[in-house]
Amino acid sequence: MQFSSKLLEDAVNEMAQLPGIGKRTALRLVLHLLRQPEQQTIGLAQSLSKVRAEINFCQSCYNISDKKVCEICSNPNRIGELICVVEDIRDVMAIENTSTFKGLYHVLGGKISPIDGIGPQDLKIQSLVNKVKSGEVKELIFAMSPTMEGDTTNFYIFRQIQDYDVAVSTIARGVAAGNELEYTDEITLGRSIQDRIPFETSLKS
Amino acid sequence: MQFSSKLLEDAVNEMAQLPGIGKRTALRLVLHLLRQPEQQTIGLAQSLSKVRAEINFCQSCYNISDKKVCEICSNPNRIGELICVVEDIRDVMAIENTSTFKGLYHVLGGKISPIDGIGPQDLKIQSLVNKVKSGEVKELIFAMSPTMEGDTTNFYIFRQIQDYDVAVSTIARGVAAGNELEYTDEITLGRSIQDRIPFETSLKS
Ligand SMILES: [Zn+2]
Ligand SMILES: [Zn+2]
Repeated sequence: MQFSSKLLEDAVNEMAQLPGIGKRTALRLVLHLLRQPEQQTIGLAQSLSKVRAEINFCQSCYNISDKKVCEICSNPNRIGELICVVEDIRDVMAIENTSTFKGLYHVLGGKISPIDGIGPQDLKIQSLVNKVKSGEVKELIFAMSPTMEGDTTNFYIFRQIQDYDVAVSTIARGVAAGNELEYTDEITLGRSIQDRIPFETSLKS
Repeated sequence: MQFSSKLLEDAVNEMAQLPGIGKRTALRLVLHLLRQPEQQTIGLAQSLSKVRAEINFCQSCYNISDKKVCEICSNPNRIGELICVVEDIRDVMAIENTSTFKGLYHVLGGKISPIDGIGPQDLKIQSLVNKVKSGEVKELIFAMSPTMEGDTTNFYIFRQIQDYDVAVSTIARGVAAGNELEYTDEITLGRSIQDRIPFETSLKS
C-alpha cells in the first residue's frame, strides 16, 4: 500500500496493529476520522490513553475497576462465599447481564493453552486457590468457555482444591461446545448458571 | 452493556463511534490494548491526533499530502494534461498500485448522492471545471465507482465541460456493476483504465 502522506501511513499502521483490523479497514477508519470534527479524534485518543495509563484491576477478583476493590466485591448484598470463575472481564459483563448470579467473581485472565504458551502461572490461579484454602469460599462455579482449554483449566484448578471443603460445580452446557461464552444469549447463559452440576459429575458425561 | 469501570466505558464508547465497529468489537479492541505494552496505545493515540491535526490536502488535486502540492502533482514526469477523476484518495492509491496511469488525479471527495444529502457543491467539482476551462487539461478520465451515484456525478461534470476542447472518457466497465472501485483487483482496474471509452459512447451502452 503506497501512501501519499507519512502522517496517514503512520496512523494506518498503528490502527492495523489492532486484532482483526487489516490495512484496508484501518485506512477506512482513519479517513473517516479525518472527515469528522477534530474533537472526535481527540476524544478517542484521550480516552484510550487514559484507560491504558490509569487502568486498575480489583485486588480481590481482578475485574477491571476504577477503585482498588470493585463494586461487585465491595457490595454487601453479594454472597461472598460463592465465587464464579471466569476467563475474562467480558464474561463478568455477560453473566451480570443475566441478573441471575448474586455471588462474586474471580477473573483468571485467560485459560491454560500450551499452544499459545499460556500456562497456569500466567493466570490468577494461585490467588483463587489461596481463597479456597483460607476457608472463605463455600462454592466455586466454573464458568469457562466450553472448549478443551476451558476444560483443562477447570481440571487444573479442581485438582488443587479437591481436598478442601468447597463445592465445585460447572455451568450447565446449554452452550454449544466450542462456542465462546460471551456470544451466548442471556437466557441460555442465565439458565446454565442455575442448572450448574457438580464438577465431578461433569467429568463422567 | 454494564461496565465495571468508567474509564473503560468511555474508551469503548469512543471506539464504537468508528464505522463498522460495534460495542462488542470496541470492547475487544480496548481490552487488547490493555494487555499490550502501554507504548502501543500511546503510539496509536499520538498518530491519530497528529494526522487529524496536521492533515493537509494537495491544493491542486485534493489528495492527502504532507506538502502543499502532492508528490504526484509536483512530479515533472507525470502528464499534466491528463486528469483522472476519482471519488476518494483510496481510489488514487488503488490506481497508483496498478502502475498503468501516468497523468494526474482530481479527488472529488465523494459522489453526488441526494439520499445522503451530498450535492455538487459538497464536492471539488468547481475547481475541476475551472481546470478544464483554463485549457490546461486535454483529457479527463472518469474513474468513479460504477454505481448510480458515480454515473450521476460523471454526467453532472460532463454537462459543464462538454463545450470545451477536452476528451472525456470513462474507465472500461471490467468492474462488476455496483462494486466499489477500491476492492477491484489490480489487473482488472489497470486494464479498465487502458480500455477507457469516450464518455458519450458510454451513455449509449
Ligand atoms: Zn472485585
Ligand atoms: Zn496533488
